[in-house]
Amino acid sequence: MDQAQARSWLAVAVAEARAGLAEGGIPIGAALFGADGTLLGRGHNRRVQDDDPSVHAETAAFRAAGRQRSYRGTTMVTTLSPCWYCSGLVRQFGISRVVIGEAVTFHGGHDWLAEHGVEIVLFDDADCVAMMREFIRERPELWHEDIGA
Amino acid sequence: MDQAQARSWLAVAVAEARAGLAEGGIPIGAALFGADGTLLGRGHNRRVQDDDPSVHAETAAFRAAGRQRSYRGTTMVTTLSPCWYCSGLVRQFGISRVVIGEAVTFHGGHDWLAEHGVEIVLFDDADCVAMMREFIRERPELWHEDIGA
Repeated sequence: MDQAQARSWLAVAVAEARAGLAEGGIPIGAALFGADGTLLGRGHNRRVQDDDPSVHAETAAFRAAGRQRSYRGTTMVTTLSPCWYCSGLVRQFGISRVVIGEAVTFHGGHDWLAEHGVEIVLFDDADCVAMMREFIRERPELWHEDIGA
Repeated sequence: MDQAQARSWLAVAVAEARAGLAEGGIPIGAALFGADGTLLGRGHNRRVQDDDPSVHAETAAFRAAGRQRSYRGTTMVTTLSPCWYCSGLVRQFGISRVVIGEAVTFHGGHDWLAEHGVEIVLFDDADCVAMMREFIRERPELWHEDIGA
């Protein structure tokens, strides 16, 4: 895909991550875009805010998009490599593409998704890396809880 | 694990599935049990009821269990073989065991979970099969929507 477009979509996910951080939450954000580029849903991790372990950034964006008959051509944009839970979501629903801010601080299931035909656009975004590095340093127990480590 | 215990746990998931069906929803139920056998959370698919595609039975039970520091020794019980989304949940959070009512009407990711060290107890429960068969026959479009097919 067009790198400038991927960058502009990533900015939406980054804004979600920063909103989550400002709420005292885990700074991971995501957004789901339709095949025509429409923003279908956006969200961020809300483990802390809602006391809900099931709301990862990607599942929040997926939920916000509401019921869709098909995910063909859609793109999930996330600030961080998707964990197995969120990678499973992408595979099960046939989301076509995943744009990832970084996979330096956490390497999830995006290689597995690529093997199964999902297009992966992986950035090494310095702002995304710095945001997660700082969060993991300050709140390691919360980060480990969020990924079941 | 003890088969009688697995059967009694499955009954909780089946009750959830029937509750979902009675609400006009997709009849899949689940429950998460702790290492000591305590029921941590139970739930059912609520795509229709909440207009929310992210609430599969397993994610509902996981959410109902609240935040847990560790899932070591826990068992996810579900009426139906877990889809990739729910299989990813099990793998990411290190849920130790999955008890499955049936994998006849839908074969999800349980083989993959077994490869990754999750204990799988798979029944071929006639009631579970009949419930899903009837649902799929009556509401094929809803079923396909729920698994992204």
